[in-house]
Amino acid sequence: MTQDDLRVTTLGERRVPSPVEHRLFTPDNARVLLEVDSVEGAEPSALGSAATDAKPLAAAPLMFEKAGPREHVYFDPRKSKAAVVTCGGLCPGLNNVIRHLYFALRDGYGVPTVYGVRNGYLGLTPEAPQPPMELTADWVEAIHHQGGTMLGTSRGHQDPAVMVETLVQLGVNLFFPVGGDGTQRGAHAIAKEAARRGVDLAIVGIPKTIDNDILYCFQTFGFVSAVTEAERVIDRAHVEAKSVPRGVGLVKLMGRNAGFIAAGATVASGEVNFCLVPEHPFELEGPRGFLAKLERRLEARGHAVIVVAEGAGQGLMDGLDPTAVDASGNRRLGDIGLLLKERISSYFDGIGKPVGMKYFDPSYYIRSVQANATDSLLTERFARQAAHAAMAGKTDLFVGYWNGRIVHVPLAASVGKPRHMAPESELWSAVQSITGQMRW
Amino acid sequence: MTQDDLRVTTLGERRVPSPVEHRLFTPDNARVLLEVDSVEGAEPSALGSAATDAKPLAAAPLMFEKAGPREHVYFDPRKSKAAVVTCGGLCPGLNNVIRHLYFALRDGYGVPTVYGVRNGYLGLTPEAPQPPMELTADWVEAIHHQGGTMLGTSRGHQDPAVMVETLVQLGVNLFFPVGGDGTQRGAHAIAKEAARRGVDLAIVGIPKTIDNDILYCFQTFGFVSAVTEAERVIDRAHVEAKSVPRGVGLVKLMGRNAGFIAAGATVASGEVNFCLVPEHPFELEGPRGFLAKLERRLEARGHAVIVVAEGAGQGLMDGLDPTAVDASGNRRLGDIGLLLKERISSYFDGIGKPVGMKYFDPSYYIRSVQANATDSLLTERFARQAAHAAMAGKTDLFVGYWNGRIVHVPLAASVGKPRHMAPESELWSAVQSITGQMRW
Amino acid sequence: MTQDDLRVTTLGERRVPSPVEHRLFTPDNARVLLEVDSVEGAEPSALGSAATDAKPLAAAPLMFEKAGPREHVYFDPRKSKAAVVTCGGLCPGLNNVIRHLYFALRDGYGVPTVYGVRNGYLGLTPEAPQPPMELTADWVEAIHHQGGTMLGTSRGHQDPAVMVETLVQLGVNLFFPVGGDGTQRGAHAIAKEAARRGVDLAIVGIPKTIDNDILYCFQTFGFVSAVTEAERVIDRAHVEAKSVPRGVGLVKLMGRNAGFIAAGATVASGEVNFCLVPEHPFELEGPRGFLAKLERRLEARGHAVIVVAEGAGQGLMDGLDPTAVDASGNRRLGDIGLLLKERISSYFDGIGKPVGMKYFDPSYYIRSVQANATDSLLTERFARQAAHAAMAGKTDLFVGYWNGRIVHVPLAASVGKPRHMAPESELWSAVQSITGQMRW
Amino acid sequence: MTQDDLRVTTLGERRVPSPVEHRLFTPDNARVLLEVDSVEGAEPSALGSAATDAKPLAAAPLMFEKAGPREHVYFDPRKSKAAVVTCGGLCPGLNNVIRHLYFALRDGYGVPTVYGVRNGYLGLTPEAPQPPMELTADWVEAIHHQGGTMLGTSRGHQDPAVMVETLVQLGVNLFFPVGGDGTQRGAHAIAKEAARRGVDLAIVGIPKTIDNDILYCFQTFGFVSAVTEAERVIDRAHVEAKSVPRGVGLVKLMGRNAGFIAAGATVASGEVNFCLVPEHPFELEGPRGFLAKLERRLEARGHAVIVVAEGAGQGLMDGLDPTAVDASGNRRLGDIGLLLKERISSYFDGIGKPVGMKYFDPSYYIRSVQANATDSLLTERFARQAAHAAMAGKTDLFVGYWNGRIVHVPLAASVGKPRHMAPESELWSAVQSITGQMRW
Repeated sequence: MTQDDLRVTTLGERRVPSPVEHRLFTPDNARVLLEVDSVEGAEPSALGSAATDAKPLAAAPLMFEKAGPREHVYFDPRKSKAAVVTCGGLCPGLNNVIRHLYFALRDGYGVPTVYGVRNGYLGLTPEAPQPPMELTADWVEAIHHQGGTMLGTSRGHQDPAVMVETLVQLGVNLFFPVGGDGTQRGAHAIAKEAARRGVDLAIVGIPKTIDNDILYCFQTFGFVSAVTEAERVIDRAHVEAKSVPRGVGLVKLMGRNAGFIAAGATVASGEVNFCLVPEHPFELEGPRGFLAKLERRLEARGHAVIVVAEGAGQGLMDGLDPTAVDASGNRRLGDIGLLLKERISSYFDGIGKPVGMKYFDPSYYIRSVQANATDSLLTERFARQAAHAAMAGKTDLFVGYWNGRIVHVPLAASVGKPRHMAPESELWSAVQSITGQMRW
Repeated sequence: MTQDDLRVTTLGERRVPSPVEHRLFTPDNARVLLEVDSVEGAEPSALGSAATDAKPLAAAPLMFEKAGPREHVYFDPRKSKAAVVTCGGLCPGLNNVIRHLYFALRDGYGVPTVYGVRNGYLGLTPEAPQPPMELTADWVEAIHHQGGTMLGTSRGHQDPAVMVETLVQLGVNLFFPVGGDGTQRGAHAIAKEAARRGVDLAIVGIPKTIDNDILYCFQTFGFVSAVTEAERVIDRAHVEAKSVPRGVGLVKLMGRNAGFIAAGATVASGEVNFCLVPEHPFELEGPRGFLAKLERRLEARGHAVIVVAEGAGQGLMDGLDPTAVDASGNRRLGDIGLLLKERISSYFDGIGKPVGMKYFDPSYYIRSVQANATDSLLTERFARQAAHAAMAGKTDLFVGYWNGRIVHVPLAASVGKPRHMAPESELWSAVQSITGQMRW
Repeated sequence: MTQDDLRVTTLGERRVPSPVEHRLFTPDNARVLLEVDSVEGAEPSALGSAATDAKPLAAAPLMFEKAGPREHVYFDPRKSKAAVVTCGGLCPGLNNVIRHLYFALRDGYGVPTVYGVRNGYLGLTPEAPQPPMELTADWVEAIHHQGGTMLGTSRGHQDPAVMVETLVQLGVNLFFPVGGDGTQRGAHAIAKEAARRGVDLAIVGIPKTIDNDILYCFQTFGFVSAVTEAERVIDRAHVEAKSVPRGVGLVKLMGRNAGFIAAGATVASGEVNFCLVPEHPFELEGPRGFLAKLERRLEARGHAVIVVAEGAGQGLMDGLDPTAVDASGNRRLGDIGLLLKERISSYFDGIGKPVGMKYFDPSYYIRSVQANATDSLLTERFARQAAHAAMAGKTDLFVGYWNGRIVHVPLAASVGKPRHMAPESELWSAVQSITGQMRW
Repeated sequence: MTQDDLRVTTLGERRVPSPVEHRLFTPDNARVLLEVDSVEGAEPSALGSAATDAKPLAAAPLMFEKAGPREHVYFDPRKSKAAVVTCGGLCPGLNNVIRHLYFALRDGYGVPTVYGVRNGYLGLTPEAPQPPMELTADWVEAIHHQGGTMLGTSRGHQDPAVMVETLVQLGVNLFFPVGGDGTQRGAHAIAKEAARRGVDLAIVGIPKTIDNDILYCFQTFGFVSAVTEAERVIDRAHVEAKSVPRGVGLVKLMGRNAGFIAAGATVASGEVNFCLVPEHPFELEGPRGFLAKLERRLEARGHAVIVVAEGAGQGLMDGLDPTAVDASGNRRLGDIGLLLKERISSYFDGIGKPVGMKYFDPSYYIRSVQANATDSLLTERFARQAAHAAMAGKTDLFVGYWNGRIVHVPLAASVGKPRHMAPESELWSAVQSITGQMRW
């Protein structure tokens, strides 16, 4: 990657003085370093296996454009129309994003019209179940006290030409798609189509993924709320497991490609003995296999709590079609939770030491909760900075969260590159320490 | 400040192979950049008032030592004894820190003895109400489900010579003081005394401040839990204010020198109309004074929610002795909550438009709660990295949290330099946007 | 009291067949016994001091009219208009009551118009800040997720003639005042005025009191939600008290004339050592005084948690005008919380054993919370049965909750007769057992 | 049933003066009426279909013995030993019961030894995984902050002779089995065996059932906590269902034979459109079948929330062996949740209108939570009154909760007679009103 890959597209020159009241502007050449890790001296010292991030500081290190209100903006706020759309699976904080965007645009800039597109990208097509609605202060006032999205959502691909046409018909010049990798891919297609047609439309995505697996988003909104709910489920699995002889609490959590929720909830809870994630394949059988480890744990401590991410252990599934996909184009997964439940029960039945199996599949429960304070704060930052970026005429980007700053990430630099939990990361290291799962 | 100020003291050469199982070591010359903000080009572009952090990258930027397990450690774990002490006011996560330290030392390194010092530094003196206790797995097992500190705490200064003597008598070589600026000052004095006496004692502080005002700690544990509780209080103040004609919900929150809790809860809640913090003095009277603004708000909207940090508006107090201090050496504050309550009521009585005043002073309520998931995760990082640092023979430092990494901060570089919420910070900017308090 | 005092006023003959779908009707002569306690044999056995309720069953025991849907109703639902008003202090569940009333009337009976009167009885006068609003399904849909009352409230007396006139102008024939003793007194006055004018208006009150002190309401909605919040405050006071040497956690709770919240939270928490209520005067000084007891407790156990209801210990106040009243006609109380805080601190300072005083005054915090499941269930019962009673032409009553049933209580039989926590009640007995406060 | 069936067995004459401090004793002939419903006049008025409870007051109505402290007790407290055991599935409040029993016996009566039997009745046999432990104040101090039972539990029948022998060996004279119908059956067998052997042993059961289906227990502890958790799941199902076109939120809840949790959570939530319970069989197919109703609802409103108790719709299962039972002797159930999930999806796929199916099976999640305030208060009553009953030498009974009072229920009068939700009950009527499920 080069610095050019991180260069943000701008619609044109900023001439309109910003009406933002508090006048604390960010210069347009402000930047945020991509890398904060380095070493002292020419080389990492010997034998640090976590040393991948540790290398001497480059002469011209890569930098992101820093988000923030600009002193002059591209669009005349009073003549602007904005639209926000929420796509894909639910995530705590969607209503906060809608609410904060509305207030940032209307109170901050005086934008007179903010549309809410209903039911995801589908709402920008003739098949829309409901037309876009004009948001009002009354309507957004208390929506952050509810989970989900008051605008509705949907999955699946829509034709960018159709969507651009709808936006043009509505007179929208500021467009905010809130969604995950597929949604941002769609946003990129919309931006290209708008450019092709010469439409003066700023597209600023807001990344959303309960799985926390978007590149250049150190933490996505909703993640901590989901971890909080997952932690509660784990605590109850622990209560159940401890209450019976040879009790096993087995919890399946979200995480198709990345184990962040499973790992985060494991560390937050402190009660988990085995944490299984997509990033780390494992065996069931054999003396170093999972079942033998579990047997040793149960022998020693009388109960066990297991957390498994839905995308873990896919290699253990027989007859799974690895090319099958769902409506959003995501790979179909086998149900690792049920597989583990059955394999554990039959293994211990087989050796004459049946377990007290307590299986928890909270499924959507952990994602449909209202955003907590952490996520509420994060949504405010994403939404406000997205409003600033769009008003400044930036486009074809999303607002990322990197090294503690909100930054402008060109969509082309992130989409299609999911983030994983690195084996050498502090989080995975914490999982190892706390579970002691290598020990058995 | 120079790079030498960030140089960490080490007791001696690391020769003992680390027993840590997962073998993902951090090289000892790994570093973390102090600054991540920069500009593209030679200068910040004109007129960015938030430009203080935006300057060209230095040729040799300042760097912190990066925390992490070292492949060789200084102390022989099997011959080590550790002690942890919690000092000062309560903060969500203290029990988590104790628990994680215990497991990191005992399970991670095999340290056979971990003492819990009772009632703060007082517990290291002959006046101790209770002697240090030897922690056990049973005792720490479920303590993270409770707020406060199971070891007890106290305020005030103790003689470093006496404390070092107690630690020597106990045979402690790894010492973890958990506390705020005063506590870390004490830790620095202990480290100096230990060095003077030639005692082989690693002092690794863990910063604790509900007010989030410690330098080089981007976020301290307990802060978000407190903000969460504060947000709840604000939501109820909003409910009360809306329910009566001319309702005023007034909430006093913690924050002696820094308004982080008030600001964080204001943004998280989204229901606050005025947020008053120590960093921004304000007037009550006059056409631009607070009371006139409140009058305009009430006229326009019929109700108002006000959040005030306890350290705000101290200039408004008559007859306050600015030199008075409490047992911890903190400045005595006048009660700005009660003053506002009375001044608001009498002002509106005076103009014949009495308000429905609902005053909330949650006081200790917001700090004695159990740590939430965010803080639980953060305590694990602080505690584990503190254990690694001490085992590696690092001393006279605390574990800071900077640019998303845990770093080693020499005590001399931080103590006595409280952190404030900068006027140009994103948080204060968010407060301005959300409250619209400049608008009235 | 005689059976005639429990006789309910009816506007006229019920001729209209009820449209309620599930057709499970309650006969109009269904009754609920007032007393369920009795004795076997002619007399209570000797020496049972709780024997006040234990007496032989009367030949003709007193009975309440039982609430429930009647097969024929008095009003034609399609020609009816209803109005609901919420008065006095906030209480968890007010929004649930509004929502359930709306659905019971509109979906259950097909009543086309349900008004929400704004800001209490004030909203039925020419001084109303806002006119009555017509409720809609959209408006009530999610209000039960918020505390307070979306209709607003107010305190104070209004002229019944004016209010009846407003109701007549609106065409209202079903009127539901939700409020405490003062509100029900007002409802009784409205009912008398309506009868005097010959207006065909059913007045069915719904009792509301956070203090749980309404006669013939075994439990009022909101009480348990408030106790839950109060319990949390107590738990935190316990955390604070335990954390410092000689720590005292002092919690002031609502309860002007009755100590139900203080007692309920004391028992629910299980962490309280002294519970002080209006029903039981106490002394501060002397060897059997509260301060000496507290001294003995602190000597023995090192910390103490004290709960005091706001109406307790009023006899200890100097210079309190016992005739002073507030806008709702309630007696003005001295601040027993602050008095105790100061007296405790100075007493222990005086004997050279200063305490670590942690004072909690949650005030409105415990009443502005959303209703919990218990209260949500209770509000549904009150609201639905109130709708049935009004449709049946019953008037000048409120729906009470007695012996597990919802009953019709003539207003004249309850208003002005506050309920207290009897010394021999199981609740007060539980307080004694759990605190052991008689023991010191 | 006759009054003799409600007569309580007593071990012998009470001669020992009670040491209970607050001296508010209940006379031994105090009684509580079984029925509180009646009619005025000779007959219920015509056509009240809920009239089953409405009948003229009997000359000699049935009465329960009223629980409470007796002035003289049978056992000498100082020479007594007590034991508590928790059996069967988890239920919120078990730890509260243990804690309150311990304090009632030790602090209230001065009983020096209270054993905790581990892992249910299994802990009273030679196969016990762990021996009974002697409870201490430290051990019970904070257990009520955790869900589950710190003593562990188990399912299944044990030999009464073996259990009595273990109790005799331990010297126990006060025995408190906490559990459901199976457990109380076991308690009855133990009482008979003890009587046969002439052992001076008081057996006082404490009823426990998350399903709320024990006769003469109007409400069991843990029920409301479970409803609260279930309500949360329903609210999230509602959030999910509303968010997508034709969204269906399907929630399976506990309730093998009785639908109390499903009904309670339905009413508390207010967001449910169909509530399916064991008491009301239903059809899937046909114009009045469930699927057609659901189709009409989705057509009209675009989304639906369905709650189903696990014991509902068992008649719809093919090939289910109606005689199969589990370890506790409970009938094996088919999985109605999965069946509905599949049948709904295939039905709507079949008519070309696929639904967005969101399935929630919270399973153990709702029962392993900590007790809330309501249940905490209830456990205190059960535990304290059980201690009083046992000290008074009452045996072969459990403490019931009837008409707002705690009463002594002879085990023979209740076991084997599960309680159901009556069709004419107020709760089921509320379900009908709120869901409007008869309407589609």
